[in-house]
Amino acid sequence: MFTTSVAATPVQPSAGRLRPLGLDEVRITGGFWAQRQQTNATATLPHIAHWLEREGWIGNYDLAAAGGLSEGRRGREFSDSEIYKFLEAAAWEHGRRPDPALEAKFREFVTRVAAAQEPDGYLGTAFGRPGQQPRWSDLASGHELYCLGHLFQAAVARERTAPGADDGLLDIARRAADLVCEVFGEGGIESVCGHAEIEVGLAELGRATGEQRYIDQASLFIDRRGHKTLPEPEWGRSYFHDDLPIRDATVLGGHAVLANYLAAGAVDVAVETADDELLTALMVQWDNTVARRTYITGGQGSHFQDEAFGEDWELPPDRAYAETCASIASIMFSWRLLLATGGPRYADLIERTLFNASTIASLASLLATVDDNGLQLHQYATSTITTALPDGTPIGLDVETTYPEEGAVTIRVRETAPRPWTLSLRVPAWANGATLTHQTTAGQQRVSTASGPVAGVTATFAAGDTVTLNLPMTPQFIHAVPRIDAVRGCVAVHRGPVVYCAEQPADNSASLDQLVVDTGVAPSCSDGRLLVEASWRQRTNSPWAYHPAANDEVPSATDPLALIPYHDWGQSGLCTMRVWLPTD
Amino acid sequence: MFTTSVAATPVQPSAGRLRPLGLDEVRITGGFWAQRQQTNATATLPHIAHWLEREGWIGNYDLAAAGGLSEGRRGREFSDSEIYKFLEAAAWEHGRRPDPALEAKFREFVTRVAAAQEPDGYLGTAFGRPGQQPRWSDLASGHELYCLGHLFQAAVARERTAPGADDGLLDIARRAADLVCEVFGEGGIESVCGHAEIEVGLAELGRATGEQRYIDQASLFIDRRGHKTLPEPEWGRSYFHDDLPIRDATVLGGHAVLANYLAAGAVDVAVETADDELLTALMVQWDNTVARRTYITGGQGSHFQDEAFGEDWELPPDRAYAETCASIASIMFSWRLLLATGGPRYADLIERTLFNASTIASLASLLATVDDNGLQLHQYATSTITTALPDGTPIGLDVETTYPEEGAVTIRVRETAPRPWTLSLRVPAWANGATLTHQTTAGQQRVSTASGPVAGVTATFAAGDTVTLNLPMTPQFIHAVPRIDAVRGCVAVHRGPVVYCAEQPADNSASLDQLVVDTGVAPSCSDGRLLVEASWRQRTNSPWAYHPAANDEVPSATDPLALIPYHDWGQSGLCTMRVWLPTD
Repeated sequence: MFTTSVAATPVQPSAGRLRPLGLDEVRITGGFWAQRQQTNATATLPHIAHWLEREGWIGNYDLAAAGGLSEGRRGREFSDSEIYKFLEAAAWEHGRRPDPALEAKFREFVTRVAAAQEPDGYLGTAFGRPGQQPRWSDLASGHELYCLGHLFQAAVARERTAPGADDGLLDIARRAADLVCEVFGEGGIESVCGHAEIEVGLAELGRATGEQRYIDQASLFIDRRGHKTLPEPEWGRSYFHDDLPIRDATVLGGHAVLANYLAAGAVDVAVETADDELLTALMVQWDNTVARRTYITGGQGSHFQDEAFGEDWELPPDRAYAETCASIASIMFSWRLLLATGGPRYADLIERTLFNASTIASLASLLATVDDNGLQLHQYATSTITTALPDGTPIGLDVETTYPEEGAVTIRVRETAPRPWTLSLRVPAWANGATLTHQTTAGQQRVSTASGPVAGVTATFAAGDTVTLNLPMTPQFIHAVPRIDAVRGCVAVHRGPVVYCAEQPADNSASLDQLVVDTGVAPSCSDGRLLVEASWRQRTNSPWAYHPAANDEVPSATDPLALIPYHDWGQSGLCTMRVWLPTD
Repeated sequence: MFTTSVAATPVQPSAGRLRPLGLDEVRITGGFWAQRQQTNATATLPHIAHWLEREGWIGNYDLAAAGGLSEGRRGREFSDSEIYKFLEAAAWEHGRRPDPALEAKFREFVTRVAAAQEPDGYLGTAFGRPGQQPRWSDLASGHELYCLGHLFQAAVARERTAPGADDGLLDIARRAADLVCEVFGEGGIESVCGHAEIEVGLAELGRATGEQRYIDQASLFIDRRGHKTLPEPEWGRSYFHDDLPIRDATVLGGHAVLANYLAAGAVDVAVETADDELLTALMVQWDNTVARRTYITGGQGSHFQDEAFGEDWELPPDRAYAETCASIASIMFSWRLLLATGGPRYADLIERTLFNASTIASLASLLATVDDNGLQLHQYATSTITTALPDGTPIGLDVETTYPEEGAVTIRVRETAPRPWTLSLRVPAWANGATLTHQTTAGQQRVSTASGPVAGVTATFAAGDTVTLNLPMTPQFIHAVPRIDAVRGCVAVHRGPVVYCAEQPADNSASLDQLVVDTGVAPSCSDGRLLVEASWRQRTNSPWAYHPAANDEVPSATDPLALIPYHDWGQSGLCTMRVWLPTD
């Protein structure tokens, strides 16, 4: 346990094992993620703002303010949430590196949103105005509370990266949250939103504002869910997690994004209310979901039809829905459990998911935490860290690495105090044979094996000391447990946290569906390329696909085949790809 | 080529290789299908009629007639089609074995439908009335023409099983078809229905009534499709086959039911217009669809999301959508190609689909055909056949068999004339080692191998002669081509046309996801049970499903495991099942 101080970070629990650091304390300064954050800032966010305008989704607020909404409204019922997601991303980006143009767009959108808020605090462009369905009349599908959850997250991001800004977003959020507490509090509407999100939004807004009743309302929503207060949807109550109470579930199911949002909000409630039973249930759900319902990329949610988790082991790669939103939501869930418990396995999944399934603007806040004993590094990126331990010990670190290109991560102590503390470094589960080297300015060097899941150096550090973690980056074949039917007889290849894939040969000399990989020859790196030995089956043109005789299609002689990181798929144009490579 | 005579059968081409026999010419009298037809007549059809009433879908017609439709209408936009499908099934059942209660229900429903038809012939409860969208205003999703296609099939069934009945159904259909020709003919609306079905309905209504313009209109619809006259739907134009002209396609894609309906209608048009180019294109589409996009059960359509065919080889068994409607539609397509070309492979797929994926009331009409040379048996069921060859030679046959329980099919000649003709028997592709025995009343016996795909006996038969086809019914392991990723490292088991499956052990002593089958021991039959040697992997509780080491879970010693026909799955309650059994 520790006392919190306000930081520019998405999750600020009042209790838990680890304290998160804010964007003001951790800055990514180079390497893999710096490039992607630059792309996000200069290309992705302006692109999104342009399309929110072009699609009319921000325009809906103007129509609402002008009283002409019901006829002219554009977009789906949840389009408001896209505005708030943009505002949240822009706020975190502001915390990372302020930009006048983005700040101007942020303020413009907030002003337009504000004009549409009704006197009693209601905010939403899809319900409640003349010609529209009444407010709260379609909790199952209407997304009204869902959208507000995203509004609250945007307001929290803004408050934590630009405290005291006079844009009014926090006030908008508070007035909307007050209305939600009034309408859905004790004695109010005894139901929940079909699309979970308000819970995690309310909880963090409560933390950011100190309003206990927002956390209480999140707790009420968590407890109400699973009691069948919503009409049954086409795909069954599990779709929106109204089939059984959260504390009775043993694994995530139903809509994969919403399941993770809900679980994240439930962790917040469990931490704020010291509800160990609920926290334990969520840890079990995380364990089983990761063991049985997660792709090798960290992706979650197999089903296209209902965007849902499938059954245990139902993880078909050729129809993996695995949407990016689910990856982001999964990181939200994992991060909260990491802060609550300190378990490095949560950071392992975050890393896998980051490198293979998603990117986010507030990324730096996932890199490090502190506790009474010292500082924990969970993710490795070239960065600077400037913070303090709870007792006031100042800590300044410079992290240098080309990870995941290479496996060396060097942490140089820039600032500290003459007292011992522990620098803890996560050793990923795949990193068999990692080593740790502590080099002092006095010339002492100590090398130790880093067997994981966490390797620590406890010392009275001096400025100039370095700690180097060496992670083995040998590429490996990976086998799935036999219960995953869809990838039987196949292997995947990873190198460090990065999952690789084979792309369709550009010259179409062979088709990926003829590929066979020789697992007798280990994958290797050569001239920056990752190679496996591959042959290609000759295709026979059978009029029927099922025969008494086993396959007798003759493979060609093997040749080296270059694989590429899965996250780089399609860089040279649309093409077929496979992560799981047949071996027979 | 031959001259048609009217028969009680769903498809009556004016040209083609084979002439279909009607329900008045072929009667199933015992065995596997007789039992199921009995269930259909006594349980399924009354059940459907009850629910059409209970759900309000037939009541929609009463509301339409009373002028109160727009508020009270119930069901989806295509609910009218369910009424017509019931009428069609009831008509075929009437042709098989008349039943006064069913006949009364049929007439009652027709009367209620008739009352809702508008003066200009328009019929449909979802569009065009006050408070509803205008007629034909949503061709992409409205299903107006789709419903009428089913109406036409019902009217054809009635006309062929109760010609001259004064119920008015044929007149209803003609008036609706006339309106369709007027509205969508040359110079009319230049588009098609998003959900193909009107084409096959119009073509057969044209055949049944002699109205050439119905066939012309079907031809127009076929030629118009694929020219992007419909708005693009969420899942792309291929969903409703508006992405490329039918004659340019090389495989069925998009919605699997509609693709087969459309292809069936296109065969009808190709045959009636002697369009060999179109017919050839459809044969190629059938070949490629069966080779690459069909489950071992004959099921088609992998995707839940859009009820669609997937890519080539995308045939996951654990998420096989494979709806019964697609099986019925596939039989419609195959049957038309069989009549047009005589190719026994079409009957092979029909058999596989019948035994593993669907049942139908007009089944007897799929058993036999005639041509100038004689009679062809395509499917084997205990039945009587009473017909004539085109030259007038009377033919009476009694077929006796317990197929698919056993493989002997005995055809006894009951009636014939003293001239030679050929009795042709399909030898299924799986029937390696079949024999044919011709036993004359004069005491002569001739045994020959029946190497397939068709075995024929040409003789001047006498009453009392028997021909016995002996099909080998040894159960076999079946392997899929390696391009079907989802079943790699697995085998299926079939015996004759019947695909088998393993059900979850009722005592839950082991889980089906632990099953491993020993393919070194051939499947066997013992005491009426089909057995394979099976072991069960011990489950390890791994927190992550992907590892550098291959599976080291130790299987138990093998024991015999009884499989059941896939079509009997779930008879003793809901349970997990698998057709594809892991072998590693």
